[in-house]
Order: sequence, then structure tokens, then C-alpha cells
Amino acid sequence: PDRAARAAAEARNSRLTKPPGALGRLEEIAVWWCGWRGVARGALERPQIVVFAADHGVARRGVSPFPAEVTAQMVGNFAAGGAAINQLSRLLGARLDVVDVGVGRPTADFTEGPAMDEARFLQALGAGWDAVDPDADLFIAGEMGIGATSAASAVAAALFGGGAEAWTGRGAGVDDAGLRAKTAVVAAGLAAHPEAAADPLEALRRLGGLEMAAMAGAVAAARARRTPVLLDGFICTAAAAALAHASPGALEHCRAGHRSGEAAHGRMLDALGLEAVLDLGMRLGEGSGAAVAALTVKAALACHGGMATFAEAGVSGG
Amino acid sequence: PDRAARAAAEARNSRLTKPPGALGRLEEIAVWWCGWRGVARGALERPQIVVFAADHGVARRGVSPFPAEVTAQMVGNFAAGGAAINQLSRLLGARLDVVDVGVGRPTADFTEGPAMDEARFLQALGAGWDAVDPDADLFIAGEMGIGATSAASAVAAALFGGGAEAWTGRGAGVDDAGLRAKTAVVAAGLAAHPEAAADPLEALRRLGGLEMAAMAGAVAAARARRTPVLLDGFICTAAAAALAHASPGALEHCRAGHRSGEAAHGRMLDALGLEAVLDLGMRLGEGSGAAVAALTVKAALACHGGMATFAEAGVSGG
Repeated sequence: PDRAARAAAEARNSRLTKPPGALGRLEEIAVWWCGWRGVARGALERPQIVVFAADHGVARRGVSPFPAEVTAQMVGNFAAGGAAINQLSRLLGARLDVVDVGVGRPTADFTEGPAMDEARFLQALGAGWDAVDPDADLFIAGEMGIGATSAASAVAAALFGGGAEAWTGRGAGVDDAGLRAKTAVVAAGLAAHPEAAADPLEALRRLGGLEMAAMAGAVAAARARRTPVLLDGFICTAAAAALAHASPGALEHCRAGHRSGEAAHGRMLDALGLEAVLDLGMRLGEGSGAAVAALTVKAALACHGGMATFAEAGVSGG
Repeated sequence: PDRAARAAAEARNSRLTKPPGALGRLEEIAVWWCGWRGVARGALERPQIVVFAADHGVARRGVSPFPAEVTAQMVGNFAAGGAAINQLSRLLGARLDVVDVGVGRPTADFTEGPAMDEARFLQALGAGWDAVDPDADLFIAGEMGIGATSAASAVAAALFGGGAEAWTGRGAGVDDAGLRAKTAVVAAGLAAHPEAAADPLEALRRLGGLEMAAMAGAVAAARARRTPVLLDGFICTAAAAALAHASPGALEHCRAGHRSGEAAHGRMLDALGLEAVLDLGMRLGEGSGAAVAALTVKAALACHGGMATFAEAGVSGG
């Protein structure tokens, strides 16, 4: 971040007509955003949300209550404007892009081999990198893909250890039997790829999804351009965690938008030292949790940029 | 609430293109709002925020780091558009009213007698009642008044028991010595008004503030008109708690906008069975926490009202 801009934003914050710290987390969010944008104050004007869509080889193992066709059907729903992320993008005033990185062209089943070969993995990373609008002033990566939480659980288990059970949850809503089966699939993936534990990007390639690779590429591109990022939920954070493990500090431009209803997400945020802005039990994906959180970022910047100082307002300080 | 509208809103929620429950708290919020508005779906179009401003007799006892003149100065800041609540109202698209119920005409010092006589108390309740726009589709009561957290602490202690220490916090930011002095003032108020523990409205009259009485009147008026309410922080919730203790169910039309940085607020929400939408450590007053939370209500309604159903989108159900 830009240290001078950050310091100027902090100084401005300290002069605004409120008791010190009284806007709580909003103050830290405003200063964080200003630092990465290189400005002493500003407003959220060009947020961008990209939903990366892809299919998963493991979907055929019955890890989701929804059939794999739903990935393509939901991409149609995005195009028609009917999904949650369409409503949230409109409310936020965000540009919404949907990038197909593998719909109908699933990854390989990770219990049988690497989910992606190196060429496909790099292609997805690059698609993510290229999807970030250089003019965006906040970036959110979302995802759609039946089977994606299984891939994210496998990646998380490889990165953080603790075994499949610690990182596997109900995703879109599997029942108890479904959760046992899903956990067994994740465990089989981990057993098939012992190399994944030693190399974060290999974990992403062997156990992750095309949309996860793209999200990692996008988060890295945003860092290169100093674009602040709000992370979404379990799948997005697992993809970002691979970056963090590969390169410490890789997520300094990120804040966690929300704490997901997927139980292992909170554990992952804690392990990464990230404190979520919202905790609303959301677990939809699509970037939806981060999109709601972006409204709070907008509020933080509206206060920071628009409030009068004690001197301007003629208000006595404490 | 309107049971038929609530049931219709719930039915619609269950048909939207997302796994059941995947929007977490947003789903409950949308159904709650629809039930009180009497509609199967809708959008937040006419939110109203009213800031009640008043001075406090106890302010002269040094319970705040700010001098009492700041109440009037901040009313000037509201008029000039420079306060946090001005920025948040504009972002939300809310009508903002500032109602003077006692600026420069403080309550009596509650350590020496009742804060308000009955006439003044009823006048403030009525001013709050009258301030609610009958056409508002969401109501937020905020407040400004140096010394207000001392009054709220005293009311909370009278309503919930446990003594002054359990309910007194740093407010706008008193230091350790200030906190001890403030706690002693609250304890002296409780000792001076033993009648307050037996009668919630007497607690409000004897220990509260004019802005707290007005907030209680406004929340009651909103209930009579079936207008959904987002409660703000410590002071607002203490005023609403007096209603809840006087009449069980009086807050069914309310949701807690946020959990304040004032430590006793969380304890009060727990005692009232209210779960906050946000937990951002805000402790500014003015209705600011509820105003930020209202953006989440807007998001909830945008999803509930705008999303396609599985049938409309041709998406396979789980």
C-alpha cells in the first residue's frame, strides 16, 4: 500500500466529528482502502464482481444435492439477471462479469488424478488474472460450480492439515449420509495427492477447481494493481489461502467480506488471521457475501470521505 | 405482522434459485420485513432515520470526555450535513429528520431527583410518536446528547438488575478514572430512585433522557403502524427495553441493527433475545449502526424481491 496515503487517511479519520474509534471497524476499512488506492479519501465508484464458473470431476461422486447441470443452468440465470449476485451487483452499483473457465468441461476427478494438468491450471490462473478490470476500485471474486466445496475442502486440508473431516461441511446442503460420503471423497483426494501438502499451488492444481485457480489468479492480479479485494466465502478463501501459503503477505490487499455458514470457513479465516466484516450465515457463493459486505465498505468510505472535521463543523473536541 | 403476507414471503423465499437457507440471515430479514409491511415481496424505498437530540443533567458531573455544548454543536453539524449519519442517510436513500427534544434544556440531574417530571416525559414520548413518517417502510431512531450513555446505563441497570458496574461503560471514551466516576454517578442515580426497578416507564422517566423517551415513543408508534424498526445501539436499545419490559412482544417489529462497541449492549441484546445484524464495534450513536445495517436489509429485500425462482430460471432443484 501507499504509506503516505494511508497516513493521510488516518490523519483525516482522527479529525472527523466523532469520538475516536466510534465508527469501529468502518475506520480501519476506510484507511485500508485509501492506502491501497493511494488516496487520502475517496468513494467507492467502480467496484467489480467477477463470477468464475466451472464444473468439477468429483461432482459425479454425489458430493452435492444438486446435479452437475446446475452449473450451466445458473450461468444462464446470471445472464438473465435472476441470481442473487445480479441483485446485489445492481444494488452496489458494481460491474458484474461472468467468466466461464470450464462449464461442461469439468476438471478430472481428483480421487483418480490431478484435477488439472499444468497447462489447464495456468490457463485458468491467467483467465482470472485477465478478468480484473484495471480501473476497478474494489474487486470481488465469486464462483459457481457444483462440487466446488469438495474441492475447496480438499485444498484447505492440504494447506492447513487436520484431515478431511476438519474441513468438509454441508456445502449446498448435503444430509448426514451425504456429508459422510463427501468427507470420504475429500479424504480419498488427499490420499491420492500427498505432494499437495508440500506445495500450495500444487494443492490448488491437484485438488482445486478451475474457478478456484481463476480466483487465485484474479486476487494476485488485484495485488499487482493495488486494487483492494473483499474475499467471499469458503471457496474463495481456500483459493486465496493457496496464494498466502505460497507467498506470505499475498493477501495484505484483502479483507474478509464475511464469515460463511460453512463451518470450516471460520477456522480458515482464523488460521489466516482475517477478521470477517459480516457474519450472517450466508453460504451461497457467487461472491454474494462479499457483495453484501461491500455495502459496508461503501458506508465506511462515505463517512470517511464526507464527514466534517471538528474544525470545519465548529465542534469542541474531547 | 400480517401472517398471510409472511407466509407468502416465506413461500417465495423457498422457490428462489439458491440452496435452502444459503442466504443465511438475509432470508429471515426479508420475511420479517414483508410480514410487517403486509406484502409477499417488496423493496426498501422509504426508510426514515430520526435523530432525537437532548441534553442531560448528569453531564455536569463529568461523565463524558466532551463538554455539554457538543450536543448543540452536533445538531448544527447535522443541519450542515457533516455528521456520520448524514453520509449514511444519503447512501441509504433515507429521509433524515433531527428532532430537538431538549437541547440546551437538559433533564434534571438524576442523582438529585427524577430526570423528567411527568409532563415533560409525556411530551417527549409524544414528540417521538409524532416523528415517525406514516409512509416510512423502515424506521431507525438515533440520538445525540452528551451524557446519554450514563442515562442508558442507569435505565438498563434498573430494568435488568445487576448494579451500575455491570451496565456502565466508556461511552464516548472516558478513561479509567472517568469510568469509575461515571459508574458512581449511575450508582447514585439507582440509589436515588428505588421505584425505577419496579416500573419500566418510571425507570425511563426518572433515570433516562428526553431523547430516550422520544425513541421509546417512536418505536411504539412504529409498532402501531406496523412499520419495521432497526434498533441502533446501547441508548436506543435501553429505551426500547423499557417498552419490552412494560409490554411483552412490544419489540416484535424490531430487529437489532448492530452490536455496539459499548460492552453492556451485547448483554442487553442477549437479555432481550435479539440477535444483531452487524457487529462492527461501532459506538457513535446518531442511528449510525442501524443505518449501516439497513444496507443489509436493502440487500436482503433486493435478493428476495428480485431473484428468479427455480421454475422461472429453468434451474434443477436439489
